[in-house]
Amino acid sequence: MNRHALLHIPESRYCFPVDKENAVIRFRASKEDSGLEFSIIYGMKYDFHFTRTCKKLEIKYSDSLYNYYEIRLKLDDVRLVYIFKIQEDGKTYYFSEDGVTEDYNFVESFYNCFQLPYINDNDVMPTVEWMRNAVFYQIFVDRFKMGDENKDKSYINMKWGDLPTPKSHAGGDLRGIIEKLDYIDGLGISGIYLTPIFESTSNHKYDIKNYKKIDKEFGSTEDLKELVKKAHDKGIRVILDAVFNHCSFLMEQFQDVVRNGKDSKYFDWFLIHGDKVDQENCNYECFASCNYMPKLNTANKEVQDFLIDVATYWIDEADIDGWRLDVADEVSHEFWRRFRREVKAKKNDAVIIGENWHDAYPSLMGDQQDSIMNYAFTKTCLDYFAKGRFQAKETAEKLNNILMRNMEQVNYMMLNLLDSHDTHRFFTETSCSKEKLVAAFALAVFFPGATCMYYGTEIATEGGYDPDSRRCFDWNEKNWDMDLMDSIKNLIHLKRTEILLGYGDVSISSKNDLLIIKRTYMEHSINLVINMSKECIEIDDAGQIIAGNVTEGKLSPMGYCIYKG
Amino acid sequence: MNRHALLHIPESRYCFPVDKENAVIRFRASKEDSGLEFSIIYGMKYDFHFTRTCKKLEIKYSDSLYNYYEIRLKLDDVRLVYIFKIQEDGKTYYFSEDGVTEDYNFVESFYNCFQLPYINDNDVMPTVEWMRNAVFYQIFVDRFKMGDENKDKSYINMKWGDLPTPKSHAGGDLRGIIEKLDYIDGLGISGIYLTPIFESTSNHKYDIKNYKKIDKEFGSTEDLKELVKKAHDKGIRVILDAVFNHCSFLMEQFQDVVRNGKDSKYFDWFLIHGDKVDQENCNYECFASCNYMPKLNTANKEVQDFLIDVATYWIDEADIDGWRLDVADEVSHEFWRRFRREVKAKKNDAVIIGENWHDAYPSLMGDQQDSIMNYAFTKTCLDYFAKGRFQAKETAEKLNNILMRNMEQVNYMMLNLLDSHDTHRFFTETSCSKEKLVAAFALAVFFPGATCMYYGTEIATEGGYDPDSRRCFDWNEKNWDMDLMDSIKNLIHLKRTEILLGYGDVSISSKNDLLIIKRTYMEHSINLVINMSKECIEIDDAGQIIAGNVTEGKLSPMGYCIYKG
Repeated sequence: MNRHALLHIPESRYCFPVDKENAVIRFRASKEDSGLEFSIIYGMKYDFHFTRTCKKLEIKYSDSLYNYYEIRLKLDDVRLVYIFKIQEDGKTYYFSEDGVTEDYNFVESFYNCFQLPYINDNDVMPTVEWMRNAVFYQIFVDRFKMGDENKDKSYINMKWGDLPTPKSHAGGDLRGIIEKLDYIDGLGISGIYLTPIFESTSNHKYDIKNYKKIDKEFGSTEDLKELVKKAHDKGIRVILDAVFNHCSFLMEQFQDVVRNGKDSKYFDWFLIHGDKVDQENCNYECFASCNYMPKLNTANKEVQDFLIDVATYWIDEADIDGWRLDVADEVSHEFWRRFRREVKAKKNDAVIIGENWHDAYPSLMGDQQDSIMNYAFTKTCLDYFAKGRFQAKETAEKLNNILMRNMEQVNYMMLNLLDSHDTHRFFTETSCSKEKLVAAFALAVFFPGATCMYYGTEIATEGGYDPDSRRCFDWNEKNWDMDLMDSIKNLIHLKRTEILLGYGDVSISSKNDLLIIKRTYMEHSINLVINMSKECIEIDDAGQIIAGNVTEGKLSPMGYCIYKG
Repeated sequence: MNRHALLHIPESRYCFPVDKENAVIRFRASKEDSGLEFSIIYGMKYDFHFTRTCKKLEIKYSDSLYNYYEIRLKLDDVRLVYIFKIQEDGKTYYFSEDGVTEDYNFVESFYNCFQLPYINDNDVMPTVEWMRNAVFYQIFVDRFKMGDENKDKSYINMKWGDLPTPKSHAGGDLRGIIEKLDYIDGLGISGIYLTPIFESTSNHKYDIKNYKKIDKEFGSTEDLKELVKKAHDKGIRVILDAVFNHCSFLMEQFQDVVRNGKDSKYFDWFLIHGDKVDQENCNYECFASCNYMPKLNTANKEVQDFLIDVATYWIDEADIDGWRLDVADEVSHEFWRRFRREVKAKKNDAVIIGENWHDAYPSLMGDQQDSIMNYAFTKTCLDYFAKGRFQAKETAEKLNNILMRNMEQVNYMMLNLLDSHDTHRFFTETSCSKEKLVAAFALAVFFPGATCMYYGTEIATEGGYDPDSRRCFDWNEKNWDMDLMDSIKNLIHLKRTEILLGYGDVSISSKNDLLIIKRTYMEHSINLVINMSKECIEIDDAGQIIAGNVTEGKLSPMGYCIYKG
């Protein structure tokens, strides 16, 4: 037994309640110890020395080094205490807060057993249920569609369809999205995620001057209300981008500090090293190294009040369905706790999705964010589909590893994406392989959580890094590959309608260089098999095939298939 | 290299800020890999692909399986990203979110490096500074001293000094404590922690009827105010016991439910399975299995309001200095977050100490409690000093393990105790060895955090489990062992006055079956060496000996010595 590999952390992603009566317990051991038998011995805190239940643990996930065992316990009394039992070569060991021991003294267990001391309702992380089967369409507003032909177009400095530069304004707006709602609905989309739309001089509008005003290039509050209303009528939710880490140099409050220095009542809203603002030497904290985006001090109570007012204002005003949080990881955790309380009080099923490219567990414990943009998933897809760094085995291991980063509830709310305005286009990363693009999208559909598709994916839009990933949508249907679009639509439709993809348990494995994702509920399953090798590979156990590239029981190279079990 | 042993968890006890500019990073590896070289490669998030610093890590703690490396980084830019470098047999490996790899691609590090994305002021866990050198005296009020001779004594049902039963009332009260403040001050104590004092029918008063009324057996609000005022005049702080998990069956709100069942406006204050209260079958949740202590529903907003009003009322009214939280682990985390906000807003340096016998990291992340009663420390002392289960080596390993459970700031606020009203008397556990008692107390003084002494320890009071651990204080000085009391007083004095014991870095090790605790700051150190073996053991490097049992350079069995380095 590799004792060093054993891991359990109570009241964490390794032990958490899913509701008032059910708790999930996870336990980690070395993959080399797959032959050992691991069990949980559990009971009620005040009775553990007398009454105990023992249940064998089963492997739920495996990555390159570890097996992760998981069990769901239905509890009559939620004052849960427990230890683990390990059986190796006929010998029994115990694993408690004291580590591995050959004996365990249950009479003194109050000193060193593990515990989930009580399940208080309000501490259970709830799932935003609609996220389970959601498919988002991410729109970079300036580049999707111009709808308002009557607006002052003098700001537009590029021809629709030309390659954008960092300073290009193409003319896309909210009216354009409203016009294209039928198109979006036709794709099967259930949520629209808009990059920022508030007043700002840039095309991306991540430098906001006025958080309560829609940028006039994009439209008006009335336009947003109309968009949300019409989207809701089609069953489509709308989430906006909350850029709360920083603002525009031109925001009135920062300008007040520029004018008045330390005498400004907004001085402490920012993090300025000195008595007055020195833009040239950038003596204030800002986003990355961009001096036109001064950082907001989200530890400051007044700033918190200001931003929370913004967050709830747009729910009240336009009935939006949640927020994507820009640079969420650099903003105060205490602020996000407050933000969650106020946003959820306003709209209980509003979703809160952080931008955090890393293991974001510190923000996903239930008191802050629901979900993040799942860039770890993105990276795995790149390594597997695009870069050829991973074979099916490594891919399965990495995806398992990602699932172990968070509580089950959070996994079902993850925003799984192949690309965004902040990456290269995935299609371009695959050297423009539509097969790979669709197979990867299928994986994004099968992976637990919501799927997020960047605008233009369905028409094979190309693009390198920013600004190239933000090209204008090509509305000339003659240029569209309808096979690709149909494949994407079918996958979206499947995600939206197949309850197994929302609620099914997930198992991810590899076999003969095939990547296999199985979603199971009760006796039913739906399976995705992907072949990124150069050979046709035989697939077994395939039941009723729904989609894919199977000929004579073999899956084509770069192909995928979906079947029900 | 044992890859399975490697552990790092960003934004956790493995990576945390201690102030706006300094962060502590910890890294775990197998003890068997002590020969390997581990380093951290770090930089600024938006510049990591260009500019990086590499620093070697040193071992800070070691338990039975692992070495824990620690480094404190002073950051010019607090947007910290990092990975670890491992050197083994001339080969270099990297450890990131992707685990161990032979190469590391810094250009793509935004996908898988570790990060402490930003240090927001309000997310840094502050240390309640006075806890560092504090020594508490825990008083079980009914058994310490009767001061009010004029009160209605009809409730007293035992003779002072007789052995108590679960229902005994001996007559101790707040007036008695006021009278004995000089005595307490004479011991050198800096904090008094009182078991509950609010209206209740029991002797322990953990079943509270009225949270805003001092029990008349113990005195009045005026008495409490006088006690706190006089204690403050001597530089002694006072903390009270917050019994917020449950109340008395007789509390007015529960009685309203008893009378009105589901129609009571307090019905949702409790967790009742049915429409009305059935005391006999205890159809409501309660503490342990005690039907006279119904559990409060701390997820309920009204209950939260009620309890927070209590918590702040006593700060306003009597100027108390903090709360010890009874059964803290079964109370809602979300409630404790609110509790912390409101208590700290009222009195910034009030301390919040949870009762939690286990690894309590989920409550000690900065948003809930400051500290817990350190029963893991208690258990280690029992195993070493009393039960002989541990030798010095195992003791050092366990104490190191305990230190790794929490952030540094929390370690300096821990309430380290040998016993309490909820355990056997430590003295009795040692079979009444005063040598062992004093040596253990010395360890409690040297261990980072506050020391807590249960009333009567200084006069060698005996006692088994509750109710025996709650005997009356023996005020007959003829029965006191003044040598014992002097030893205890000297140790308390040392804790209070020796800045190294409050601020010094800690190193705990063993050598030749000696347990060695070293507290260091700059070039200075103070050392405690304990010998629980049956032999005299030579000690080396002893500088200026302050106290202890050293003869001809040898430390006596069951002895300890303290020297400055």
